Amino acid sequence: MAQRLNSKDASFSAAFDAFVLKDRDGGADVSAVVREVIAAMRAGGVDALKDYTQKFDGFALTENNLRVTAEEIDAAEATCDKDDLKALDFAAARIRTYHEKQIPSDVRYTDDQGVSLGWRWTCVDAAGLYAPGGRAAYPSSVLMNAIPAKVAGVNRLAMVTPAPKGEMNPLVLAAAKRAGIDEVYRIGGAQAVAALAYGAGPIKPVDVIVGPGNAYVAEAKRQVFGIVGIDSVAGPSEILVVSDGKTDPNWIAADLLSQAEHDPSSQSVLITDNAAFADKVEEAVREQLSDSPRREIAEAAWSNNSAIIIVSSLDEAPALVDKIAPEHLELAVDDPEALLNKVRHAGAIFLGRHAPEAIGDYVAGPDHVLPTARAARYASGLSVLDFMKRTSIIGCDEAAVAKLGPAAARLADAEGLPAHAKSVRVRLKG
Amino acid sequence: MAQRLNSKDASFSAAFDAFVLKDRDGGADVSAVVREVIAAMRAGGVDALKDYTQKFDGFALTENNLRVTAEEIDAAEATCDKDDLKALDFAAARIRTYHEKQIPSDVRYTDDQGVSLGWRWTCVDAAGLYAPGGRAAYPSSVLMNAIPAKVAGVNRLAMVTPAPKGEMNPLVLAAAKRAGIDEVYRIGGAQAVAALAYGAGPIKPVDVIVGPGNAYVAEAKRQVFGIVGIDSVAGPSEILVVSDGKTDPNWIAADLLSQAEHDPSSQSVLITDNAAFADKVEEAVREQLSDSPRREIAEAAWSNNSAIIIVSSLDEAPALVDKIAPEHLELAVDDPEALLNKVRHAGAIFLGRHAPEAIGDYVAGPDHVLPTARAARYASGLSVLDFMKRTSIIGCDEAAVAKLGPAAARLADAEGLPAHAKSVRVRLKG
Repeated sequence: MAQRLNSKDASFSAAFDAFVLKDRDGGADVSAVVREVIAAMRAGGVDALKDYTQKFDGFALTENNLRVTAEEIDAAEATCDKDDLKALDFAAARIRTYHEKQIPSDVRYTDDQGVSLGWRWTCVDAAGLYAPGGRAAYPSSVLMNAIPAKVAGVNRLAMVTPAPKGEMNPLVLAAAKRAGIDEVYRIGGAQAVAALAYGAGPIKPVDVIVGPGNAYVAEAKRQVFGIVGIDSVAGPSEILVVSDGKTDPNWIAADLLSQAEHDPSSQSVLITDNAAFADKVEEAVREQLSDSPRREIAEAAWSNNSAIIIVSSLDEAPALVDKIAPEHLELAVDDPEALLNKVRHAGAIFLGRHAPEAIGDYVAGPDHVLPTARAARYASGLSVLDFMKRTSIIGCDEAAVAKLGPAAARLADAEGLPAHAKSVRVRLKG
Repeated sequence: MAQRLNSKDASFSAAFDAFVLKDRDGGADVSAVVREVIAAMRAGGVDALKDYTQKFDGFALTENNLRVTAEEIDAAEATCDKDDLKALDFAAARIRTYHEKQIPSDVRYTDDQGVSLGWRWTCVDAAGLYAPGGRAAYPSSVLMNAIPAKVAGVNRLAMVTPAPKGEMNPLVLAAAKRAGIDEVYRIGGAQAVAALAYGAGPIKPVDVIVGPGNAYVAEAKRQVFGIVGIDSVAGPSEILVVSDGKTDPNWIAADLLSQAEHDPSSQSVLITDNAAFADKVEEAVREQLSDSPRREIAEAAWSNNSAIIIVSSLDEAPALVDKIAPEHLELAVDDPEALLNKVRHAGAIFLGRHAPEAIGDYVAGPDHVLPTARAARYASGLSVLDFMKRTSIIGCDEAAVAKLGPAAARLADAEGLPAHAKSVRVRLKG
């Protein structure tokens, strides 16, 4: 079962640090393989894409079946359960409303020296979206990746998703239609990322690539960063629950397992000041695991990567939370707002006993693409900002350059950049 | 001299595309070397740092001289020209004022379903700043990198800067002091980036690494991305001037050369609808080059990477500008605001005939760390946002989860994630 740590133990600090810094990804170096795939794609284009798709997806890609047609998408949608589609629409509307509030503002002003200053936000021309395919095909992720791009105003949105043996998930295609995705291609892996970055056959290059994928996809995004923008390098999912012991242990166990069931590399952590409650949660986890259809995955994540941490007081929790910097943080306590004000590093924070993380995965509105593996120390979840960029604006008239110019020219001289100084001085009188 | 293109020529489109997509960086693959340096640093820590510093900087690093002391910084400052220090202070105050306006706002609200939603911005705990050293030591870059971090509220700011043969630029140290940098280390190159990302001896790891450097530094930042956040992968500087031919050609020539003098890989481009004016600018460039102390560098950049593009009408300019997506864009025309509204991709835009790019390099206020090599298609200049991250907030009470829960559980079922569904359903009554 999960590792048990107690903050009273002399060994706690070392054991906790080791737990936090453990590499759950296995540390396999996929960079050489990915470099080879990207080089082959740059040299071979759509022919290389066909070879890799045959090899990895067991699917004979042609110019005709590379792109999923609007008719195919409509046909797939028609096979979907109507209530599933209604749930998708409910989610899409809520995601759109939340993301619309995050559209940034432009600013222009003239300062006391007469300099016109400000900035302006504009969206990228084209975005590429990676959606995992096959068994782990998530229509919710299609919404969570595409809607912020559309809200940002992106004109062209191209989705790639692998089709193992040609199979695609109908609800994924229905989600793509609802999210306003313009192009869908039956390709995946590092080769699909390369196709989006450099173009391949009918696939034109995009400006930004977002979306979760396996280790090869993540590494491919890292390697094409600079040619295109990327959102972040995503890893296995995580949840950290802080509980005072007054929430039903079955609820907390379900919350912990909701992330454990994603992947054997996932991580679930409980921090509580109540050891008896911890025992009850652990017992509930055991029970729920026993009849889980995804038992093998969840049990591996729970046993290999997870922990129950007993603290003397929940006052100890914020410092531990910030070191873990979890993707998802649940505050199942009486006064979650007080605790919210004391923690700093988390991708998303769920307040109270009635806010399970899965609400945020689907329908709350905020994005479910969130920083993993301690990246919440420095990174944010996906948002409209990932599809926009800010241009600085600087305007001077003769009077303004006269006021600012001398200091600029002096610094240019000090840095040994005479042409910089000259471009200012030619505009100064006398 | 610079390449000359004319939009009337039949070959223009192909020639322009080739110009835009040309790799000015030389395309040397430094990734293998950098991987080796990072691996050696992770294995060897401060000992590896000593070896690399001896090898690349010709400097015998010890535990005693690794960190620049406050006394050394004060002593260096005392040797600086007082007017240079005053210009630094003038610049620092203006940079601070502009960046303070970019601090993002937190949002909290309760929606019509009773769900508590919002987001909160917090800063990273520690930031690392790379400042180039030796000949290309720029105190202005120290301000431009450090001040946004301090404005964001970052508690610990560690700067690394190579000290070739032990030498450091006094004005760089004075700038570090003014910007509130907490730690300064005499190291550079990929090994310094590795030290900031993973820690080395007395250097504790940081959360974000920013700042310009050579190709090795840029590649090292790319490789540690995911362990830490990074700003972007910077390349050689660029300027694009759009002119109607009514600005003094000597001014425009000086502006073009102000970026050409940075590096042989830099790029300067003029777009004008006036061929006679273009000739005058070219003549002025020739004249100014002839007595430039940095002639060799500027001439290489001008001859190898630069262009004068003649258009039939300035109406053609916006589409060309957006394809180039320049780091710096000068609009030296009668109505720069009208043109501003038509272009979309640029790092910073300078309005009017009296706003040379060098004003933005030093004293205007906006950051001079800007996207290069067409990255302005998707990336922004450095700002407080590079040192902050956004946490999503989601709160539900019993009534709210009752309203949102069923759709979430249904989507979880559809995705084959039963523990997700269970964590919601256990909270639903009846």
